[in-house]
Amino acid sequence: MKVVCMRCGKEREGYELRCKRCGGPFKVDIEDLSFSKNLRENFPYVKNWISLGEWNTPMIKGNNLFFKLDFLNPTGSYKDRGSTTLISYLAQNGIKKISEDSSGNAGASIAAYGAVAGMDVSVFVPSSSRGTKLKQIESYGAKVVKVNGSREDVASAAENSGYYYASHVLQPYFRDGIRSLAYEIGISMNFESDFSVYLPTSAGTLLLGVYEGFMHLVSQGLMKDMPRLVSVQTEQVMPLCAKVNHLEYKPPERVTSIADALVSTSPFLLNEMESVIRKYGDCIVVNDNEIIDAWKDLARKGLLVEYSSATTLAGYYKDKAEKSILILTGSGLKSIQ
Amino acid sequence: MKVVCMRCGKEREGYELRCKRCGGPFKVDIEDLSFSKNLRENFPYVKNWISLGEWNTPMIKGNNLFFKLDFLNPTGSYKDRGSTTLISYLAQNGIKKISEDSSGNAGASIAAYGAVAGMDVSVFVPSSSRGTKLKQIESYGAKVVKVNGSREDVASAAENSGYYYASHVLQPYFRDGIRSLAYEIGISMNFESDFSVYLPTSAGTLLLGVYEGFMHLVSQGLMKDMPRLVSVQTEQVMPLCAKVNHLEYKPPERVTSIADALVSTSPFLLNEMESVIRKYGDCIVVNDNEIIDAWKDLARKGLLVEYSSATTLAGYYKDKAEKSILILTGSGLKSIQ
Ligand SMILES: Cc1ncc(COP(=O)(O)O)c(C=O)c1O
Ligand SMILES: Cc1ncc(COP(=O)(O)O)c(C=O)c1O
Ligand SMILES: [Zn+2]
Ligand SMILES: [Zn+2]
Repeated sequence: MKVVCMRCGKEREGYELRCKRCGGPFKVDIEDLSFSKNLRENFPYVKNWISLGEWNTPMIKGNNLFFKLDFLNPTGSYKDRGSTTLISYLAQNGIKKISEDSSGNAGASIAAYGAVAGMDVSVFVPSSSRGTKLKQIESYGAKVVKVNGSREDVASAAENSGYYYASHVLQPYFRDGIRSLAYEIGISMNFESDFSVYLPTSAGTLLLGVYEGFMHLVSQGLMKDMPRLVSVQTEQVMPLCAKVNHLEYKPPERVTSIADALVSTSPFLLNEMESVIRKYGDCIVVNDNEIIDAWKDLARKGLLVEYSSATTLAGYYKDKAEKSILILTGSGLKSIQ
Repeated sequence: MKVVCMRCGKEREGYELRCKRCGGPFKVDIEDLSFSKNLRENFPYVKNWISLGEWNTPMIKGNNLFFKLDFLNPTGSYKDRGSTTLISYLAQNGIKKISEDSSGNAGASIAAYGAVAGMDVSVFVPSSSRGTKLKQIESYGAKVVKVNGSREDVASAAENSGYYYASHVLQPYFRDGIRSLAYEIGISMNFESDFSVYLPTSAGTLLLGVYEGFMHLVSQGLMKDMPRLVSVQTEQVMPLCAKVNHLEYKPPERVTSIADALVSTSPFLLNEMESVIRKYGDCIVVNDNEIIDAWKDLARKGLLVEYSSATTLAGYYKDKAEKSILILTGSGLKSIQ
């Protein structure tokens, strides 16, 4: 399948991560792909799945409020949807040593799938990182490399490490795996489209991956319209909401919000996110108190997620669309210590 | 459906937890139940499911070694299989306040399902309890009651608390839900029976629940034979292995093994476990070093489980049956802090 620049349409050459012509991000071009209910067949570039049993997470149905339990993916977050496609693709192309920059769910997920593929995985993290997710990364056998400096310094250390840079943000085969989430929702909802989907949004891979999947269902005539896509961001990290809703926004020196997985103050994919949300949805800002209240309400329903995931319920409370699906992206077991 | 004493066959009266005639444990009598591939129909006493999306966990297929990822149940352990049946049954019978004794996975699971049912849940734990599982129990909104004294003192405090005692060990509707695990394995293996199943065994609800499920498939003519059932225990807590293999065994004052979920030194269900293992399997003892090595090997395959679950791989290494399934019972995210 072709991989093309999301901005100018130029085809990707080799393994480049940014378009040589315009600097834009790449995506897998699925225009000519016909949808299969056998979900794996919608990713024909994978010949040999590196799998831990990801996808097909439960959806719990309330009245008009549905919860998609994506924290029940094998490493405890929705990131596994993208790691399986990316790592499978890299493994079948003979890549043996990879780097990634993330002290969070993406790092843990890439570490796990890299381990299954027998790869040598180096995960670059800010030197201040600690906590369960870091221990999780180490448990899977990945090398953790601590880097002094800013978040950008960490990213460039990973990119220039000499290993293949398996970035969950830049690699189109990562984001592409997240289409699977839209397909599962589509099937669960009998391909109707009269609902809103709430997603925590930081780097934008979740939003754009889900968007691509629904778009595919629409273009194939399976769904009549796009469902409404609602990005939820925090007061501290709200570049998308600021842009869409014309709000003033000054990113903080250091993100201290309880939603500690949502940290992309100036995401590479911001333009792409903006055009999706302008056309098909809304962006809602929530604060830490609202997140904590929502987190408690979820836990009292037996749903133990991380604070970053509870933003979806906090956003829903402010918005109250009729029929709604909350994507519960990360496990609370990583953050209750 | 009838609930009968496992020792003398006497029918259960009301909510009693031990047979009035012989003191034995109860089980749900499924003799006349015909098997349905729609798994929920095999539990006809549940009219209204209290569910968090449990069951249907992934099975990963290696060559001759399969991993059943039961730690991907909603609260992070296989216990959810039993909590859904027990709590559903209690809720539909109007029970509103329950007690349980467990500072571990069972406590967390009962707390979560109790919360979904809107029950008032009190979880009794030894006063020395700490850690992620305890925080998990509290997160779901359960009251944690710390009790000084022995494990037995904690149990009797829960039983005599005035709340309905929703014991995962004594309540037949808890153990009965674990049949679902055998059904899922049966379906995954196309109802063949030429394999061994490795299970960590402590109180015995896992072993006996799985046994009942396979027995049902055999009695219904779907499976030709019982698969081989292999209980794995630790050197410190090996009452079943000691009995079956005629080993000397003196329980320690305090269990300090790294496999901290396996603590039943004199389980109520010991006789029932013994007769199953004598007839259909084996019991294998592993030590902490073997468990740690197995845990690492699993993590390096992307499978982050708790030490108690890694006993299955340690047992498999000592035993090496041809075609084998390991039940990975609990999430490593609860124990890596
Ligand atoms: C738990 C959780 N939810 C949501 C997100 C947001 O996803 P994205 O960065 O793709 O927008 C992340 C990203 O790290 C996450 O870890
Ligand atoms: C993770 C885990 N595995 C295995 C077991 C053993 O199950 P049982 O006590 O039913 O024998 C337990 C029991 O607490 C457990 O928590
Ligand atoms: Zn371009
Ligand atoms: Zn009896």
